[in-house]
Amino acid sequence: MEHDSELRITLIGAGTIGLSFAAFHLSHLTSPSHLTIYDTRPNAEEYILSTLPQFYQNGSVPISLSEINIATSLSSAVSTASIIQESGPENLSFKKQLWKQVEQHAPKDALLWSSTSGIPASQQSQDMQDRARLLVVHPYNPPHIMPLLELVPSPETLERVITRTQDFWLARGRVPIHLKKEITGFVANRLAFALLRESIHLVQSGVVSVTELDKIVESSMGPRWAVAGPFKSYHAGGGPGGLEAFFKNIGGTVQACWTDAGQVNVGDGWEDQVFREAREAYGIVATTERDAITRRVLNTIEEERAKTIGGEATSN
Amino acid sequence: MEHDSELRITLIGAGTIGLSFAAFHLSHLTSPSHLTIYDTRPNAEEYILSTLPQFYQNGSVPISLSEINIATSLSSAVSTASIIQESGPENLSFKKQLWKQVEQHAPKDALLWSSTSGIPASQQSQDMQDRARLLVVHPYNPPHIMPLLELVPSPETLERVITRTQDFWLARGRVPIHLKKEITGFVANRLAFALLRESIHLVQSGVVSVTELDKIVESSMGPRWAVAGPFKSYHAGGGPGGLEAFFKNIGGTVQACWTDAGQVNVGDGWEDQVFREAREAYGIVATTERDAITRRVLNTIEEERAKTIGGEATSN
Repeated sequence: MEHDSELRITLIGAGTIGLSFAAFHLSHLTSPSHLTIYDTRPNAEEYILSTLPQFYQNGSVPISLSEINIATSLSSAVSTASIIQESGPENLSFKKQLWKQVEQHAPKDALLWSSTSGIPASQQSQDMQDRARLLVVHPYNPPHIMPLLELVPSPETLERVITRTQDFWLARGRVPIHLKKEITGFVANRLAFALLRESIHLVQSGVVSVTELDKIVESSMGPRWAVAGPFKSYHAGGGPGGLEAFFKNIGGTVQACWTDAGQVNVGDGWEDQVFREAREAYGIVATTERDAITRRVLNTIEEERAKTIGGEATSN
Repeated sequence: MEHDSELRITLIGAGTIGLSFAAFHLSHLTSPSHLTIYDTRPNAEEYILSTLPQFYQNGSVPISLSEINIATSLSSAVSTASIIQESGPENLSFKKQLWKQVEQHAPKDALLWSSTSGIPASQQSQDMQDRARLLVVHPYNPPHIMPLLELVPSPETLERVITRTQDFWLARGRVPIHLKKEITGFVANRLAFALLRESIHLVQSGVVSVTELDKIVESSMGPRWAVAGPFKSYHAGGGPGGLEAFFKNIGGTVQACWTDAGQVNVGDGWEDQVFREAREAYGIVATTERDAITRRVLNTIEEERAKTIGGEATSN
């Protein structure tokens, strides 16, 4: 189904995440008319058609956006969809109610995805008749640029549904990762927030400023981890002995850092200084520039990887 | 002094870090003869000249390595140096002894730098007569590729020494960051190890495998943080309200992740699984490929930043 020229995608919710997904799908669908967007805001059609160009470089859209279906009811939005992804409010009762209704009107084999960053599929599906159909497909924002999708099924989600979801994203050059447990915050945010917590601690302790900390990350682990994740990097750092040798060499320092790590909490009082420093240094960040650079970085890595596939096969 | 065509650099210790620094300096010095390397291993000259080409892309060295001075005594190595950087064993008594000797033979205004990843300048300088001269200049490996240098003075290091050190690296397009305190592990490693700790916890908990975790980082926060550090990213994530709005929106999720974060320690028993997964997935990592890709990523970001300097001035 996923390679079918008849594939039809319905997006529920036209916020930043929904429209970023729209921009991504439009570059892969047979026709813009195979995309349906449903949003309950007043003048949704006008809002969507005027906002979508922001998700294209220099605002130049290579297709006819007016062919997109802007649905006026949930039932008509989902009735012929192959895939339905909701990016609505982060509110459990909204999502429970939504899936109950979607189930009544969508084709039996449509894939049902939630973009939530925190509400597990097992909770969202509580009022569904067939709870095996739903899973979380959590993007790293913005999804029209960033390759990661965290797939977080509930214990009831069918294996077949997970596989079809993985295949869909793999076929489109993305990186879908299947999380084996419905853990708080999923994986990417947990990792990033762990580093953020230590970042706040170091600024609050007067070791570096907000901008100095950002520069440190941008000129060290940022580019490093764009190319090789933390385990692979430290495995390389250990030389032929790998991660084990790495910990034999500097496990003492690692543990010393862990023992000494900050344990700041939200509301502890670090906020005033950190928020002010960020505001004064950055004002309003121009994300279009950031996204354009990020896109080039990702393309560069992809090109280089393609070149060295021969080398990877022997060394990897 | 630092822009002087007479600038002379002496590197003590020809391990991986020392030689990587050598490769960096050779591309900026007036002549290879202005670089001196001192190492106590047998056949040091042969070792150095045969190993250095590995730090050049495809091993092609554009200069005459045989012009480098390979010193045969510490006193002759440092006697005419403008800058002396040690990348020797991570051993306090070695370093204390070294600086005491260096001080006797080096010019009075030579800058004294240690590459240590853990032994503070205030400890290394204990046996020196003039303790104001020394500071830590900690690279992110390998320094011929990665732009970051953490400058960690002791409380006694002269402000003028710190400034000259910053100016030296800034003039060579690097990112020297002055840490205001001699904190355990400095900043970059503390941040990376915080994320590593949560990574180990998630693998040990069965949420993802070692390679899945690496893929998550490579396709999300790696490329994101290569372009904009964590504070800038989350400040952008909050829209016009910045970091404050970000925490207003999802501070609850951030705190939930912090509260639920893993607290693994070295020796807890996670090692067998994690080391084995890394070994089986990665074997011996080809760092030359990784470094070539990283170099292109860094060049790409620099090019893009240069293009958008006009935009940055208004948005940043």
